[in-house]
Amino acid sequence: MAGSRAPTLSAIAGEAGVSVSAVSKVRNGGTDVAADTRARIARLLRQHGYQVASQTGFAVADLLIGCLDSPWSEELIRGAVEAAAEAEVSVIVTTVSSPAGFARWLDRASRRGTGGALCVLQLPGSQELQRLAAARIPLVVIDPPEEPGAAIRSVGTTNWQGGMQATRHLIELGHRRIGVIGTEAVWSGRARLAGYRAAMLEAGLDVDERMVRHDGLTAAGGRAQARRLLALPDAPTAIVAGNDSQAFGVLQALAERGLRAPLDVSVVGFDDVPVASWATPALTTIRQPLAAMAAAAFRMLSGDLAAVADEPHHLELATSLVIRDSTAPPRGR
Amino acid sequence: MAGSRAPTLSAIAGEAGVSVSAVSKVRNGGTDVAADTRARIARLLRQHGYQVASQTGFAVADLLIGCLDSPWSEELIRGAVEAAAEAEVSVIVTTVSSPAGFARWLDRASRRGTGGALCVLQLPGSQELQRLAAARIPLVVIDPPEEPGAAIRSVGTTNWQGGMQATRHLIELGHRRIGVIGTEAVWSGRARLAGYRAAMLEAGLDVDERMVRHDGLTAAGGRAQARRLLALPDAPTAIVAGNDSQAFGVLQALAERGLRAPLDVSVVGFDDVPVASWATPALTTIRQPLAAMAAAAFRMLSGDLAAVADEPHHLELATSLVIRDSTAPPRGR
Repeated sequence: MAGSRAPTLSAIAGEAGVSVSAVSKVRNGGTDVAADTRARIARLLRQHGYQVASQTGFAVADLLIGCLDSPWSEELIRGAVEAAAEAEVSVIVTTVSSPAGFARWLDRASRRGTGGALCVLQLPGSQELQRLAAARIPLVVIDPPEEPGAAIRSVGTTNWQGGMQATRHLIELGHRRIGVIGTEAVWSGRARLAGYRAAMLEAGLDVDERMVRHDGLTAAGGRAQARRLLALPDAPTAIVAGNDSQAFGVLQALAERGLRAPLDVSVVGFDDVPVASWATPALTTIRQPLAAMAAAAFRMLSGDLAAVADEPHHLELATSLVIRDSTAPPRGR
Repeated sequence: MAGSRAPTLSAIAGEAGVSVSAVSKVRNGGTDVAADTRARIARLLRQHGYQVASQTGFAVADLLIGCLDSPWSEELIRGAVEAAAEAEVSVIVTTVSSPAGFARWLDRASRRGTGGALCVLQLPGSQELQRLAAARIPLVVIDPPEEPGAAIRSVGTTNWQGGMQATRHLIELGHRRIGVIGTEAVWSGRARLAGYRAAMLEAGLDVDERMVRHDGLTAAGGRAQARRLLALPDAPTAIVAGNDSQAFGVLQALAERGLRAPLDVSVVGFDDVPVASWATPALTTIRQPLAAMAAAAFRMLSGDLAAVADEPHHLELATSLVIRDSTAPPRGR
């Protein structure tokens, strides 16, 4: 805007169709302006180069994480924190593992104010959503555990396509007996399993239901189900795991039987957490852009998208196949 | 304090030897009280059941992390966040990887105020320390990269003893040719290597300097140095790694030569990050209580220890040996 002067607050008030007092309140972080009006005003103020105070007096956003015991959340924290830092916003991280924990966080956040909440794999229930709305706290869910609906903004990854990419890679290597381990407990898991089925169908391969195993997204879950797959009379020559933790468990089950990846059985993970490359052999996996997902969620939150009817309520960022050393053609090819 | 009434602010002022106005300022989060006086008053207020506002208007502490790309930081974040939540304190997480990044964080934190900063493996330089002091921001360093001195409060783990515990475990299993991989670049690494030497000395075993390798605390570093160790004419029957990432790399180097842990070579890690149990075989390792370290650092920060001359400036929490599947007696025993 070189050469131009920022319009006065009253000009902005005119453009937004509100009172000057409302514009001033929003600029100074006042809380008694309806959320959608506040969002509209804040957007105009920022467009015209004004600083907009958060309701806390400084810019803060909350990141709520269900559990902090997987290398998965680390990438998400990094993405959110670094995107926020660019916008001069401080990120408060809280672990929430129960409705009571959520209520405690909400009490605190309501008292101090927040620019909004990013929730990871933690979809608040209807009661919590009502309280969030009453406290005028915007929400974006990262990796929604249930089917994303229009009521809640969310950011995910192309899990269905990722399941296809993993399976198609094995089919292209020549595998025909391909097992899959996953979970139906969360939306992303259902999408990945469906991607496996779609890739098999695309290649004209029948799905043997004994080859489709369900378990928790942990190394123990992967190990338990890989044991079952390897015990089948016509055991698979390749296994698609539900995530990298499960893939590590599959490698353990192979070693128990004196088998090796990829010589005896190929293994594909999902996530590409930093430790995926530490495995023996280094894991071929489907990369979820975790840090980019968190950054996108932060921008969705801070962009006041709720005020813009034609913005999508859900985004999916692309997965990609990362080929390392745990996949190869089946023996005899 | 059932049955008793909280003393008045003037009684507390008398006890602290300050004016009532100073007590009132501290109670309400005012910034113009010297740090040590503020700490003394805040402690008395809390002892008598008063709430003490932080200088931000609500209770916040900062956690600064150098890099967020290892499963290591995750545990620290969890420890800090959960200890802070118990005290109704919100934790702002920031990644800082350069002096410029530190300066940007400090500007933000100075403007908004903070109850103090926890720094992980990120010892601010003398210039940064002066600016922290000028901004009256208390500091506790977690896992100090240089020798802990009285000028900076810090929390670490018993790295030297941990190095001994790892090495002694292998000696007790019957190993005599034991290689070690580590780093001299950080204080904790030097302590672990010294622990290896102490355990060898304790057992009357000579240290073969070709068996002492230095490299970065990454899987690639562990792999590179294990390759060298395994290429020695009298290769070691066991390897102590500098951390779990390096141990994963050692397992990769073994597989390259068609060797297996613990059948051919035993391997011990350090840290016990959650993924240690995902390895094939699951890693025997030295557990650092990472979450407890962060919690202790938070309590050190919030306890206003700076005001108490006889509190120690450095704490070390105990390491412990976690025996899993990557260690066994050497072949032929």
